[in-house]
Amino acid sequence: MIRDLTDDQARAALPLKWDVEPGVIPAWVAEMDFRLAEPIEEALVRAIRRGAVGYPPHHDGVGTAFAGFADRHWAWEMPAEASVPAGGVMSGIRLALEALCPPGSVVVPQPCYPPFRDVVAVTGRGLVTVDLDPDAEAATMDLDAIESAFAAGARTFLLSNPHNPLGRVWTREELEALAGVAARHGVRVVSDEIHAPLTLPGATFTPYLTVDETAVAVTSPSKTFNMPGVHGAQLVILDPELRARAAALPIPAQNSWSSLGVVAGEVAWRDCDAWLAALVDRLADNRALLADLLAAHLPKARMRPLEATYLAWLDLRAYGVADPAAAALRHGLRPAPGSDYQPGLDGHLRLNLATNATRLSEGVRRLAAALSSADA
Amino acid sequence: MIRDLTDDQARAALPLKWDVEPGVIPAWVAEMDFRLAEPIEEALVRAIRRGAVGYPPHHDGVGTAFAGFADRHWAWEMPAEASVPAGGVMSGIRLALEALCPPGSVVVPQPCYPPFRDVVAVTGRGLVTVDLDPDAEAATMDLDAIESAFAAGARTFLLSNPHNPLGRVWTREELEALAGVAARHGVRVVSDEIHAPLTLPGATFTPYLTVDETAVAVTSPSKTFNMPGVHGAQLVILDPELRARAAALPIPAQNSWSSLGVVAGEVAWRDCDAWLAALVDRLADNRALLADLLAAHLPKARMRPLEATYLAWLDLRAYGVADPAAAALRHGLRPAPGSDYQPGLDGHLRLNLATNATRLSEGVRRLAAALSSADA
Repeated sequence: MIRDLTDDQARAALPLKWDVEPGVIPAWVAEMDFRLAEPIEEALVRAIRRGAVGYPPHHDGVGTAFAGFADRHWAWEMPAEASVPAGGVMSGIRLALEALCPPGSVVVPQPCYPPFRDVVAVTGRGLVTVDLDPDAEAATMDLDAIESAFAAGARTFLLSNPHNPLGRVWTREELEALAGVAARHGVRVVSDEIHAPLTLPGATFTPYLTVDETAVAVTSPSKTFNMPGVHGAQLVILDPELRARAAALPIPAQNSWSSLGVVAGEVAWRDCDAWLAALVDRLADNRALLADLLAAHLPKARMRPLEATYLAWLDLRAYGVADPAAAALRHGLRPAPGSDYQPGLDGHLRLNLATNATRLSEGVRRLAAALSSADA
Repeated sequence: MIRDLTDDQARAALPLKWDVEPGVIPAWVAEMDFRLAEPIEEALVRAIRRGAVGYPPHHDGVGTAFAGFADRHWAWEMPAEASVPAGGVMSGIRLALEALCPPGSVVVPQPCYPPFRDVVAVTGRGLVTVDLDPDAEAATMDLDAIESAFAAGARTFLLSNPHNPLGRVWTREELEALAGVAARHGVRVVSDEIHAPLTLPGATFTPYLTVDETAVAVTSPSKTFNMPGVHGAQLVILDPELRARAAALPIPAQNSWSSLGVVAGEVAWRDCDAWLAALVDRLADNRALLADLLAAHLPKARMRPLEATYLAWLDLRAYGVADPAAAALRHGLRPAPGSDYQPGLDGHLRLNLATNATRLSEGVRRLAAALSSADA
């Protein structure tokens, strides 16, 4: 059911990820070396054939489809009308910061997806980063530091739930504690939940809105279903007044969304559970394979449990290489540098494991060679 | 070559435009009741089949294809690298206002495309509107009023070239005069040229950048090729420093663009000249038909020459109906109210004539009935 792309197919399908020298294994940007789910592919082709590439409809089925998905996968009964369309997750977050959040600085835990910092800068807000100690046993939120930032005036918190690049699925208790601190300080939480369907066996995803009804969640099927080129995302807002404010924004504030994103989103949330189950199986297999590969080839690598996403956060400081991603690239593997996610953090990288076993195995071998090489 | 959509097909393909009561002829939003050009349809289907729905490539062929189009159609030799991708024309204009224009108010002639006002508000800039006198013989720019606004501190001018909703193709002399005034006051002109390929026989389009190399043009194939649902647009910037500034902006500022937009844009600018020629023929025929229909059914309607676009700006004040669009809707035709384009302006509407002759003829008959009716 998961259709692997050959190198040639991947080069044609994923021109950004595969914009690497011939022979290099790309394991950086968050795309999967798999073809589209068949129901999405067929729905998009039908849409193109009937010319459904005009403006998106005022009323679409994405919210209803997402409510069904949330109920089936997370036992979350949420109203279909809670979804407000957005062009993408980042433009949705931008919209939320500009139109739905109180003035004041924005707190962003690090490491973080780099555009989290960019979006704060673009909106002209102050940025308060709260860094995870790389030596911490578990990847947790430093609630004391976060509360200090709120006490100093920050009024928005940007949550990644589950977390990219840490691969953490926050527990309900952790999210409740965050919600409590946020409520005490009048802070609005904006929760990026794009990785939620990629929660792996062993962890349970908690939608942040189930612990904090005042928050704004932002999601999209584009990550799970490997289609960032099809623009479409959703703000999910339970508070009717806040939702009305979002829905009333003019086109230039909403950045608009695409009709093909509506077509793909509806099918993705409604008709692709079997494909998603197969995907999660594959990712769980790759997670196990990665553990074996690390044990065999990089025994000093440190990796906290990967609870969600297909992005492994590797602490390679024990090998004494400041920029292991650059060293890996010289040996034919392109991971993402850890310092992109936490500026100044040495010895880390993010490895994309959504590929076939051959590439993953060879990639880890190349990484091991790079870290033991004289030119590392 | 132009494939007309039946009512049923149009309802499926264009859910926003055709979100009208059964039997009502939609003539409001700027979409055409025609299917996609075959080369675009085939390229999009091929892209979906190969899974090309990932992140867009760093380097694409849209700029090169557009440079070829500009050379063939307007004898404009511009460098392929002048194009910087944007998600859409409005997000491109927003980006230009926020990152490429000096501080100060923004001058917008009216009537205007309503999001022109919205985008100024969204960016927090002051808005200075300069209204066209509805009784003016020709639709011209009031350069004295514009220069007064510049003298009072405005530093950006938002140009629609050709103009929506007036249907004017500005002459080279008019644009040179604007450029002269702008240069005297250090004003940056942002020129929306999305309607340029829809210049009709009898007029000659002048790219604004050919009279002012400091300007930012924004364009997209989405209007001409009837695919606003496929996100993709371009900033066209000749000044290398300014272009580098735009290209260096982070994802949340650029709002990103879509891979399918890259696929469609490249084909549209490169392989669709024959389709475009057939489209312009059809629109010219419809322009002639509209003139005949108005003469027969609405002899007191006033319409300046339609030089570009498929959007007719009708002055119906002679019929004494404040909101002729509302009256028309009660009689089975949905045009766009003139007051959307110039708040407070009575008696005008914008009529979309990109449809078949039957709908256009019946639409004008319904409009005539509405304006002569007791309940108008």
